[in-house]
Amino acid sequence: MAKRLMRMGAFLNVTGHHVASWRHPLTFADEGIRLQSYVDMARTAERAKFDMLFFADTPAVREAKMEALSRSAQYVAAFEPITLCSALAAVTTKIGLTCTASTTYNEPYNIARKFGSLDHLSGGRAGWNIVTTAQSSAGRNFGIENDYTHAERYDRAREFTRIVRDLWDSWDDDAFVRDKESGQFFIPEKLHTLGHKGKWFSVRGPLNLPRPPQGHPVLVQAGSSDDGRDFAAEFADAIFTGHVVLDQARAYYDELKSRALGYGRNPDHVVVMPGLSAVVGRTESEAREKEQLLQSLMHPVVAREILATVLGGVDLSPYPMDGPLPPEEMLPVPPSAAKSGRQNWFDLAKRENLSIRQLALRAAHGRGKSAIVGSAQQVADHMQEWFEKGGADGFNIQPPCQPGSLDEFVELVVPELQKRGLMRSEYEGRTLRDHLGLPRRASRY
Amino acid sequence: MAKRLMRMGAFLNVTGHHVASWRHPLTFADEGIRLQSYVDMARTAERAKFDMLFFADTPAVREAKMEALSRSAQYVAAFEPITLCSALAAVTTKIGLTCTASTTYNEPYNIARKFGSLDHLSGGRAGWNIVTTAQSSAGRNFGIENDYTHAERYDRAREFTRIVRDLWDSWDDDAFVRDKESGQFFIPEKLHTLGHKGKWFSVRGPLNLPRPPQGHPVLVQAGSSDDGRDFAAEFADAIFTGHVVLDQARAYYDELKSRALGYGRNPDHVVVMPGLSAVVGRTESEAREKEQLLQSLMHPVVAREILATVLGGVDLSPYPMDGPLPPEEMLPVPPSAAKSGRQNWFDLAKRENLSIRQLALRAAHGRGKSAIVGSAQQVADHMQEWFEKGGADGFNIQPPCQPGSLDEFVELVVPELQKRGLMRSEYEGRTLRDHLGLPRRASRY
Repeated sequence: MAKRLMRMGAFLNVTGHHVASWRHPLTFADEGIRLQSYVDMARTAERAKFDMLFFADTPAVREAKMEALSRSAQYVAAFEPITLCSALAAVTTKIGLTCTASTTYNEPYNIARKFGSLDHLSGGRAGWNIVTTAQSSAGRNFGIENDYTHAERYDRAREFTRIVRDLWDSWDDDAFVRDKESGQFFIPEKLHTLGHKGKWFSVRGPLNLPRPPQGHPVLVQAGSSDDGRDFAAEFADAIFTGHVVLDQARAYYDELKSRALGYGRNPDHVVVMPGLSAVVGRTESEAREKEQLLQSLMHPVVAREILATVLGGVDLSPYPMDGPLPPEEMLPVPPSAAKSGRQNWFDLAKRENLSIRQLALRAAHGRGKSAIVGSAQQVADHMQEWFEKGGADGFNIQPPCQPGSLDEFVELVVPELQKRGLMRSEYEGRTLRDHLGLPRRASRY
Repeated sequence: MAKRLMRMGAFLNVTGHHVASWRHPLTFADEGIRLQSYVDMARTAERAKFDMLFFADTPAVREAKMEALSRSAQYVAAFEPITLCSALAAVTTKIGLTCTASTTYNEPYNIARKFGSLDHLSGGRAGWNIVTTAQSSAGRNFGIENDYTHAERYDRAREFTRIVRDLWDSWDDDAFVRDKESGQFFIPEKLHTLGHKGKWFSVRGPLNLPRPPQGHPVLVQAGSSDDGRDFAAEFADAIFTGHVVLDQARAYYDELKSRALGYGRNPDHVVVMPGLSAVVGRTESEAREKEQLLQSLMHPVVAREILATVLGGVDLSPYPMDGPLPPEEMLPVPPSAAKSGRQNWFDLAKRENLSIRQLALRAAHGRGKSAIVGSAQQVADHMQEWFEKGGADGFNIQPPCQPGSLDEFVELVVPELQKRGLMRSEYEGRTLRDHLGLPRRASRY
């Protein structure tokens, strides 16, 4: 059996994941709308043999970002990610292209087409990160005044995702014979009309696209709530998670793999990739200095706003910045809120006795995901420990500052991981499924 | 004043516009899903200084194409055009990228984002061809069992398009100051929240994208019905039409320009571009031979099927192939059908006393648009006549066979048009609006 390799995503996000990154002297502040920046980063990640690029998405500007002169305002405006990934498909050859689309604010036929088309454009490198979009601000852009509940969103997402998978199977792989001599273009028996009538959708089909090169584009999911875990176990080929300590990561990892088994799936075909924000230096002290600079550019109110989001959309403004986090029951979450990761942060605050300011700076650093600061060896040690002790199959790397942090990670950490035999030095295959060690999807027919 | 130039689109469509093109020995039958074919064609058109590429779209497989072993079956499966145009944005630098999206089967927020994003990705080269999608088969993919009426579709389209334009204006051009020193990313007063509540849509906004480089991407429209003409006069920057004789083209041209004036618009800013399918040869007889070969590959039942569509979705199967077209009142159209161009074909059949077979072959050749066969001089003469006699501001070229026919057109006809001073030899500007002689759109605010 081939040695197990770390799966690596590069999660790109305007000027980087650190909220103050756009103020950093080395960042181009308009990177959210400069294609060339993304082309450069995509090529950097491809040179380092990453499995995929990863892009988040919300079809809205969050209210908090509109109200104040927020220092997280760089996230209000950027490329729509399906168009961006399609552009990147034309200028890369191997790296996977995963982006986010909401099942709450789209129609399954449109999503099946766009991700199927991206899979064809890229020769089998498309991934769809499935989200249900908790933000109320998104609903208001789509005529929805009263948010769906968490359960409703997931109910819709399950039906939506099944339809999308089925539409990708509309044509058998060998349906198109294109026989110029006889004039037969396809074999009618290899065309399948879905005729779905369900609770949320009626979709007849077929899809007007040949079966995607990967069978199905890779399905990625990031839910950590009970509904989210269940959804991930049933559908996800790869799971993007946010954990701050190894024990939690392991518990999540074990649970997800056994839930997948419960759905009759091979647990190896559910790739768990925690987010990782790393500030890397040639030495630990160089890394610490870099972190200091970045953290010093962050306004504490912005940090508190991010912590409030990470805790499910609570209101922290009544509490003193240098006092403790109030007990969990004093911070109720709106019923529609994303519940991902909330508990982790309450536990961490208690364990390390952190003030709101301290916890907020910590949470804001990696924006709810794990953040690490150190030399290449230290970062590699951390990753190796999580990888070998059952906390991760790989990582979704969140460069704090773009493009600099991605360049540094590739220059310093990747060779260290390759030297340890944890990361590939050459792509073994052509498709994103190949990279992630996943088989091509068979058709349901 | 600069000399008036012909505006040129290259309307690309799987293996070409002739329905039998995929059976032609020189065509790659899988071109609908080969990115490289489109890259090559885009570069060819850009080398020839075309204004734009143009892609049609329907979010469905038409029923007729599913039922039979239809020789028009090559159109059942191809790239989704927004993803395709985004990919082409990364490998071209000047040519405009116009593609179709339906106002009936999308949400305005998603469309505003995707075309705005394409405009940013391409540096101001995006165009949106607005359609209302008459096909019932599309509705069935979106939970719509009873088709909207023609009037309802246009009513929705008007509200949809106004919202999209307004969303593009969400941020003033100078809203993003990105002042690293002060930490101010944008100026709140330059952010506009739409708060639209209308008959079909409620959309709060703002759009999470800076104002597009063109202000608004170019709006293209192709309706020929009364509703369609009115819509085009109010909204369209460019109009794609289908006429077979100059008199009709002139009448349409004059009417559209005066309707635009009625909306307080400058008629020069409404660019009328009839479709043109040209089979070009070094000599007329070479062109005729090429046409013969193509037409010989077409099944008469397929031709009749296309004629039936051009006539608004009628049933021609009860009538003898070599008999006359029945009178108009015997061929009622379904209430939801597209009404574009129907009258032209009845008139032509009467004028030239054509049988169904003859008319069908004629209609099928250019698929309802003007088709011409001849030497480069003859094709250029035809175009020049329409251009100078008030029938056209330019043409949307529909290569019968791809990539061969586009190559031939560029090699033979374009130099002839350039020699006559009718087509540019160098791009004067950078954006699609520059190419079409249209001013950048001012914000509504």
